[in-house]
Amino acid sequence: MSQADKIPGLASDAVLKQSAPVPDSFVEVKGIDYSKDSAYNMTAIDLIASMKTMGFQGSSVGDACDIINKMRSWRGKHKSELEEHDIKGEFDDEGYQKSTIFMGYTSNLISSGLRDTLRFLVQHKMVSAIVSTAGGIEEDIIKCLAPTFMGEFSLPGKGLRDQGMNRIGNLLVPNDNYCKFEEWMVPILDKMLEEQQEELEKNGADAFDNTAGVWTPSKFIDRLGQEINDETSVLYWAHKNQIPIFCPALTDGSIGDMLFFHTFKASPRQLRLDIVADIRRINSMSMEANNAGMIILGGGLIKHHICNACLMRNGADFAVFINTGQEFDGSDAGARPDEAISWGKIKADAKQVKVYADVTVVFPLIVAATFAAQKP
Amino acid sequence: MSQADKIPGLASDAVLKQSAPVPDSFVEVKGIDYSKDSAYNMTAIDLIASMKTMGFQGSSVGDACDIINKMRSWRGKHKSELEEHDIKGEFDDEGYQKSTIFMGYTSNLISSGLRDTLRFLVQHKMVSAIVSTAGGIEEDIIKCLAPTFMGEFSLPGKGLRDQGMNRIGNLLVPNDNYCKFEEWMVPILDKMLEEQQEELEKNGADAFDNTAGVWTPSKFIDRLGQEINDETSVLYWAHKNQIPIFCPALTDGSIGDMLFFHTFKASPRQLRLDIVADIRRINSMSMEANNAGMIILGGGLIKHHICNACLMRNGADFAVFINTGQEFDGSDAGARPDEAISWGKIKADAKQVKVYADVTVVFPLIVAATFAAQKP
Amino acid sequence: MSQADKIPGLASDAVLKQSAPVPDSFVEVKGIDYSKDSAYNMTAIDLIASMKTMGFQGSSVGDACDIINKMRSWRGKHKSELEEHDIKGEFDDEGYQKSTIFMGYTSNLISSGLRDTLRFLVQHKMVSAIVSTAGGIEEDIIKCLAPTFMGEFSLPGKGLRDQGMNRIGNLLVPNDNYCKFEEWMVPILDKMLEEQQEELEKNGADAFDNTAGVWTPSKFIDRLGQEINDETSVLYWAHKNQIPIFCPALTDGSIGDMLFFHTFKASPRQLRLDIVADIRRINSMSMEANNAGMIILGGGLIKHHICNACLMRNGADFAVFINTGQEFDGSDAGARPDEAISWGKIKADAKQVKVYADVTVVFPLIVAATFAAQKP
Amino acid sequence: MSQADKIPGLASDAVLKQSAPVPDSFVEVKGIDYSKDSAYNMTAIDLIASMKTMGFQGSSVGDACDIINKMRSWRGKHKSELEEHDIKGEFDDEGYQKSTIFMGYTSNLISSGLRDTLRFLVQHKMVSAIVSTAGGIEEDIIKCLAPTFMGEFSLPGKGLRDQGMNRIGNLLVPNDNYCKFEEWMVPILDKMLEEQQEELEKNGADAFDNTAGVWTPSKFIDRLGQEINDETSVLYWAHKNQIPIFCPALTDGSIGDMLFFHTFKASPRQLRLDIVADIRRINSMSMEANNAGMIILGGGLIKHHICNACLMRNGADFAVFINTGQEFDGSDAGARPDEAISWGKIKADAKQVKVYADVTVVFPLIVAATFAAQKP
Repeated sequence: MSQADKIPGLASDAVLKQSAPVPDSFVEVKGIDYSKDSAYNMTAIDLIASMKTMGFQGSSVGDACDIINKMRSWRGKHKSELEEHDIKGEFDDEGYQKSTIFMGYTSNLISSGLRDTLRFLVQHKMVSAIVSTAGGIEEDIIKCLAPTFMGEFSLPGKGLRDQGMNRIGNLLVPNDNYCKFEEWMVPILDKMLEEQQEELEKNGADAFDNTAGVWTPSKFIDRLGQEINDETSVLYWAHKNQIPIFCPALTDGSIGDMLFFHTFKASPRQLRLDIVADIRRINSMSMEANNAGMIILGGGLIKHHICNACLMRNGADFAVFINTGQEFDGSDAGARPDEAISWGKIKADAKQVKVYADVTVVFPLIVAATFAAQKP
Repeated sequence: MSQADKIPGLASDAVLKQSAPVPDSFVEVKGIDYSKDSAYNMTAIDLIASMKTMGFQGSSVGDACDIINKMRSWRGKHKSELEEHDIKGEFDDEGYQKSTIFMGYTSNLISSGLRDTLRFLVQHKMVSAIVSTAGGIEEDIIKCLAPTFMGEFSLPGKGLRDQGMNRIGNLLVPNDNYCKFEEWMVPILDKMLEEQQEELEKNGADAFDNTAGVWTPSKFIDRLGQEINDETSVLYWAHKNQIPIFCPALTDGSIGDMLFFHTFKASPRQLRLDIVADIRRINSMSMEANNAGMIILGGGLIKHHICNACLMRNGADFAVFINTGQEFDGSDAGARPDEAISWGKIKADAKQVKVYADVTVVFPLIVAATFAAQKP
Repeated sequence: MSQADKIPGLASDAVLKQSAPVPDSFVEVKGIDYSKDSAYNMTAIDLIASMKTMGFQGSSVGDACDIINKMRSWRGKHKSELEEHDIKGEFDDEGYQKSTIFMGYTSNLISSGLRDTLRFLVQHKMVSAIVSTAGGIEEDIIKCLAPTFMGEFSLPGKGLRDQGMNRIGNLLVPNDNYCKFEEWMVPILDKMLEEQQEELEKNGADAFDNTAGVWTPSKFIDRLGQEINDETSVLYWAHKNQIPIFCPALTDGSIGDMLFFHTFKASPRQLRLDIVADIRRINSMSMEANNAGMIILGGGLIKHHICNACLMRNGADFAVFINTGQEFDGSDAGARPDEAISWGKIKADAKQVKVYADVTVVFPLIVAATFAAQKP
Repeated sequence: MSQADKIPGLASDAVLKQSAPVPDSFVEVKGIDYSKDSAYNMTAIDLIASMKTMGFQGSSVGDACDIINKMRSWRGKHKSELEEHDIKGEFDDEGYQKSTIFMGYTSNLISSGLRDTLRFLVQHKMVSAIVSTAGGIEEDIIKCLAPTFMGEFSLPGKGLRDQGMNRIGNLLVPNDNYCKFEEWMVPILDKMLEEQQEELEKNGADAFDNTAGVWTPSKFIDRLGQEINDETSVLYWAHKNQIPIFCPALTDGSIGDMLFFHTFKASPRQLRLDIVADIRRINSMSMEANNAGMIILGGGLIKHHICNACLMRNGADFAVFINTGQEFDGSDAGARPDEAISWGKIKADAKQVKVYADVTVVFPLIVAATFAAQKP
């Protein structure tokens, strides 16, 4: 070792490099203050307050709550200040513009106990529109017919199939639930087909020009909400509160199986589901929004669909993503909000955050500290 | 320390517990044998052979190649052995039943350089049907109009939006590409609307009973492949080789933007896209398959849609999943093949594997050692 | 389509397969009951109670709380029932055997605001031993000398290095903090060396036979806790409560930098740190434990080290892992508790769970509902 | 819908925003060119060449190969141009300065078939120093005594423990292998203790001043390599080629178990292992390097330890990280190279890349296209 006797300057310069003065704006990392009584059996609001300066995803959860609170409390002009043709989008009870909130969730969240939280938000009109996948629609109805059960991630598939137990992560859905769903669906599909044909006969070659005779996924879902008539259901409250639920790939699940079977039963008549009218509907909501917020729980189609709708207004003003996806594979599911900014789907100066977590862990806490801070 | 002087029996019993004899069937973990000349600048086939006993995902990649080879070489009965009504599904040139192979890929893979590999598979009829998302359709066309470029994951979104550069992971797509796409699409949409209206007028109230007057995503995509007429395109070859491409949520992307704009331009006439006929089409392919294989690159809708179709035949016989999803959040994207077995989407005795990896890293290697082992 | 007219039996048999009756033991998936007042601004205990049947990682967090409560409330025999040589391990104030709890955490958690929670546990003797990495030791001391600040994951490294701001995820540590640490450490290292040499001179060739003259990481860390004399410090309370902190790779961090520099300053005298005495110490704690619990926050060395110690007693009785690692790459960091069972590091019938989450998101909530349910 | 009749300008401005001209420097995304014969059963070099412009991790793998090639081919001054005291670090056969390459790998990689590849690199002196964890040391020796076998990730732990089969991901190690290791180790530990005591008796109170009588992990490991005398072993070749292997937490594994048992057997004599001399040794290598490269396979201690050593020279010049960690939890394991730049562990202008992948999938391919492009 050639430098054995002297203090190594190269190393000490690198290790003991002086730093620039810390700007006053810097916020110190701090955790829970256990000298306070509120540190014991903490409330959601106190927990979130102390997580704001915790770092890593703890502080991201804190940011998500801040953004949701800002999204909800945003107010624009009063109706009386607006021209007639500018009165569109959402308004509060006193007539002030408020945010249009797009909420997306993947199917598995409806299978989980989070369904009750999602229903709470819809029941109390806390969101303006929903995007989900087929399972996110049908599992809400199926849970009105029969329960889903706790299981384990490691239960072997062969034994489960033999028992007719379908696994969703650590949940189990007996296959009989889908049989009950089929019984419930068939007469509704028959009625839908009947209504479609009535309109077709009434309108002839103009049948496609208005949406009266054309079923779309959102119209189909609204009807399911009306038919189920069950207060535990998200779809029920969405129907009642006229909150549209978008699901362009509605055929991709058990509903698709039922529609497939129905093509044989109904032949040569055929029920159709048009997706063009729905893209017009969601994009129009985005364009008419006075201010737009996104709360996206999970990845895939539901994430892209809301972001794409918000491009129609040159970007959302508020965005909260919660998912476990990563950006390294170039997936949209794992893309950070900053990628959506490059596309104009989120405004460059929007308040936005991505929380890297399973939704079932963080969203109950987030809702408890925001939407459900007080009883509505 | 109370046991300071004696050898601790509790610990040594636990640490030095004897194991049962190793069964003869056990396979030793082994890597590359560098005493062989084939260990230098290895070929794909030699690499894969040595990865089979490497462990972790190295061996999963090896398994994936085995399964793909088995899927491709599977042969059933000869046509001459079958009743007329059982002659369905796929047959080889000599008249033997072969596997129907469903391939799914997410949009980002078409944005990446993997598009050339996906096109190779379609060009040479190596797959039977494709499922993708909207981006997976439109980016294939857009790349015929203008190139996509290499970028970096860390490029800030604001600066990119100012320049009109859209980021997809570490790729960049100039927004002008979408303007070119719009120019290309508008006349095609006009023609599609015209054809729809002709059929409607011809059929009146029966218009929905057959698919002649009803556009579906797969029919729409086939037309795009015909129109683009470019040998670099996946859609072109899918059209030419009559390989259907399914995309139930076709409106969820730039095509949706164009369709949205077109609803204003065409008003009061409206182009419609029905998704029910397509679920019948893909499910029928699954039912008619003599043997079914799945190669699913990525997660979300494309994964669920192929699996759900394979439920119609009580499970696929071969399945290769390649994605970065994890099961802990109960997502379908991250579910292991064994979860699909519980649903009857994969047969209990099927050959199946999940490779946990970004597709761009492993699929070129896998294809090189299987589909592209020899020049077709 | 050959089957166009008949209902497809193959598909309906697969889709509508009947399931076996649901056993009485099955637990229904349920979420938060918003009809209760306790559903608003929820407390940690109420949140956890409702997460138990939520599914996915929500229910894993619930399980973690259960296991921690069981670990803490476990009681064995009274001292009066035991032979003298069997009185070892931990006892409660009334003389009953209780669990020895090993807690491990990675360095970054001390950098985060979670340090306050970790200190709370040590201050109130809620854990028996700690394993951390070098950063988990030094950052605790450094925070007594100067604060750590909130930053962002995306801050570019070059600019930060120019300013002397070191990034840890979304945290920033000014390099001056390490300069202050060096000033604080040098006189302590001088004293340690002096004490080592005194013992060496006293004992001569027998110097290695007892630990008086031999510094080990745990002894070194205990001295730091004594010297810092600051109630915000984990090390301070560990020293005060005689809770050993193990860190076999203590040189792998800023302390290592200081020890490296000190080898030049002290030459030819040299401070030494022996790791054999510490493996004896932690393994002996495991063997003497009447019941052993593990709470492991993060992966890598700290996870393996606690598990390996618990092998000495043929497995822990309770285990809670919280980390973001995955098993697919065969890493110990990502291994499920079930892998540790195969090694005898966790008992086959132990209560165990892995929570897949960033620790800063879930551990504050878990502690609030368990250790800090009431003010100690 | 208030805008039903006009083309929505807000949306079309956002969607059809013009982009700035594409700079000439932009590189087009391209995949494999299947018109070339080299696209079939591709060689590693051809695969890597086509992955460079593939995007996502495909292109990161390409970058990793470039960086490794640059790291290996870097040459500085000739010995004849240097002052005597500047002749340090590594030189090629012709007397030119070359890179000092630090390679780190986690334990599981030695358990996997990748061990053969790691040994290849050490055997042919392609790396300068190694950092691993305890398992990465002992499993290399154990594999000389008995094989490791292929298993499955889903094998239940209880059954495996009953059979004495230890699981590492999808690998199995019979517990007898550890019994064989113990038999092999005990006489070596006895000899080591003997040598330690001889030195202590010779040097008395000065025993700690030089390393003759002080065992360190690297010296201990070198001895194991000498004793095993088996050409399949990494340790054997590291000993033979005088490539130091650092492992500060050498007690954290089966070697620790053996050392623990030995403390009882040897009592009152005690073998000691000093970690201070090793931090001096690795840091000195870094300071003396003329140019430094890092190849870090996996996360945790091995990653941090090499980075920290490179801080001593104000940063590495080349860095390749391959692991599955993510940055969102603030872990060092998941930190991007850019975080290390903020600390001065990688130079701001270094060539660096992180490949997000299981090492067993990508490193065989990377080595085939770089170190093993030609037979050495």
